Amino acid sequence: MKKKISRIGVFDSGIGGLTVLNCLLELVPGVDMVYLGDTARLPYGTKSPKTIISYSLQCARFLASMDIDMLVIACNTASAHAVPALKEEFNIPVVGVVEAGARAAIECAVSRIGVVGTSATIMSRAYEKTILGLKPGLEIFPQACPLFVPLVEEGWFDDEITEQVARRYLKDLIHSKIDTLLLGCTHYPLLKGVLVKVMGNGVAIVDSALSTARVVKEIVGPANDRSESREITYYLSDSSPRFIELGEHFLGHEMKYVYDIDLCV
Amino acid sequence: MKKKISRIGVFDSGIGGLTVLNCLLELVPGVDMVYLGDTARLPYGTKSPKTIISYSLQCARFLASMDIDMLVIACNTASAHAVPALKEEFNIPVVGVVEAGARAAIECAVSRIGVVGTSATIMSRAYEKTILGLKPGLEIFPQACPLFVPLVEEGWFDDEITEQVARRYLKDLIHSKIDTLLLGCTHYPLLKGVLVKVMGNGVAIVDSALSTARVVKEIVGPANDRSESREITYYLSDSSPRFIELGEHFLGHEMKYVYDIDLCV
Repeated sequence: MKKKISRIGVFDSGIGGLTVLNCLLELVPGVDMVYLGDTARLPYGTKSPKTIISYSLQCARFLASMDIDMLVIACNTASAHAVPALKEEFNIPVVGVVEAGARAAIECAVSRIGVVGTSATIMSRAYEKTILGLKPGLEIFPQACPLFVPLVEEGWFDDEITEQVARRYLKDLIHSKIDTLLLGCTHYPLLKGVLVKVMGNGVAIVDSALSTARVVKEIVGPANDRSESREITYYLSDSSPRFIELGEHFLGHEMKYVYDIDLCV
Repeated sequence: MKKKISRIGVFDSGIGGLTVLNCLLELVPGVDMVYLGDTARLPYGTKSPKTIISYSLQCARFLASMDIDMLVIACNTASAHAVPALKEEFNIPVVGVVEAGARAAIECAVSRIGVVGTSATIMSRAYEKTILGLKPGLEIFPQACPLFVPLVEEGWFDDEITEQVARRYLKDLIHSKIDTLLLGCTHYPLLKGVLVKVMGNGVAIVDSALSTARVVKEIVGPANDRSESREITYYLSDSSPRFIELGEHFLGHEMKYVYDIDLCV
């Protein structure tokens, strides 16, 4: 018999992964959630695969010590590099945003998918490989957008400077006539307004947060009673007020029970 | 008798501190230099004082194990928060960019100094306190510019988007009629062109790299023979090719002898 999943651990390099947690809270009721944001070492997106894998293992080990029954990698960069290492070490289901996002994009796409993300995510070619592994023949157009995360963190969502940056980054994708744009970074959904404006209404925009939550829902199986109470706990490796403020913006509600932890002593 | 200084350790959260090393190489000949960039955990500028102090101590302990006779903190954020902790632990001269930059700004200023830096540097009020401690009566106008570092790292130095971002950040400083602008971040000298354009020629621009090197030169004392050979070694906690490429841009020449180290095992 399959083990009942009663607690899910979710980690991200920072607070962007709260967009994934948000969808999980909605789609997977009655299950405890433990969120870990490695804010002391964010961003992962500029670092080498070796460092990313080592940090991901540290995050997952911390969550495993909390008795989780499933691990969700809400960080695109970690998901692009660390899934094999995590699956090898942990004997519980491991769900990464990359595979979930890739599946959602394939469902949406006609033939040409643009993928945007951090430098490390794009350089890993993880989305490209996953999409083409599942459905060869699609055309993939990758584009790194390093300034999108700092623009989101600055709160410049619907902003003329952000729009100009987006026009510069997305120029080649527009020229390539993509029909679907896959947001390969948890921060990017907050730029959806600008991205729709720049890409036009003819391009479908897919974010991987929702598709990840759908995959998790399927693994968890029939929903627990929604009225059942559950625990949601947050751990941050650096819990400065700025992260909590920004986190609540991503989450859309208050972050109760935030604990400070040291992943690296 | 004062101990002869034959090896200097320099650390930064990343590769921006190479602008400081560059000035040191020019002004302080014949002395070995060990540079440590904590690229695996950069940036420090968004993190809490507790995390910044803990990372700075780890960096300094690594450099101390290399038999250095002087420690230079080339990171503004670390310099703003960790100098007392570092001076307490290490019995060698400790020079931080903040005090050196503050002194240079005071020499330049008529009466009104604008200070730009990362969020953490500005929130620490370290430049403000240091300047007013040395010369009360000056007026200080602080301004955080979180997008400047990612813009530099994107290579958008002389760029219309960078100029618009600068105009937005510096609007209040222009309005306040500052006469001197202190660049409180090692990345910012690469934006000097844009900053001069936005602020106008009537505002003196001070960067702390050169002033830090001058303070070090004074402590080292009479110059060693310039022809004397010396060792320059680089340690990075994440030595991905991107950091080395960017580092050589900051340094203006090749980074020979780059070693990868793990500050956090």
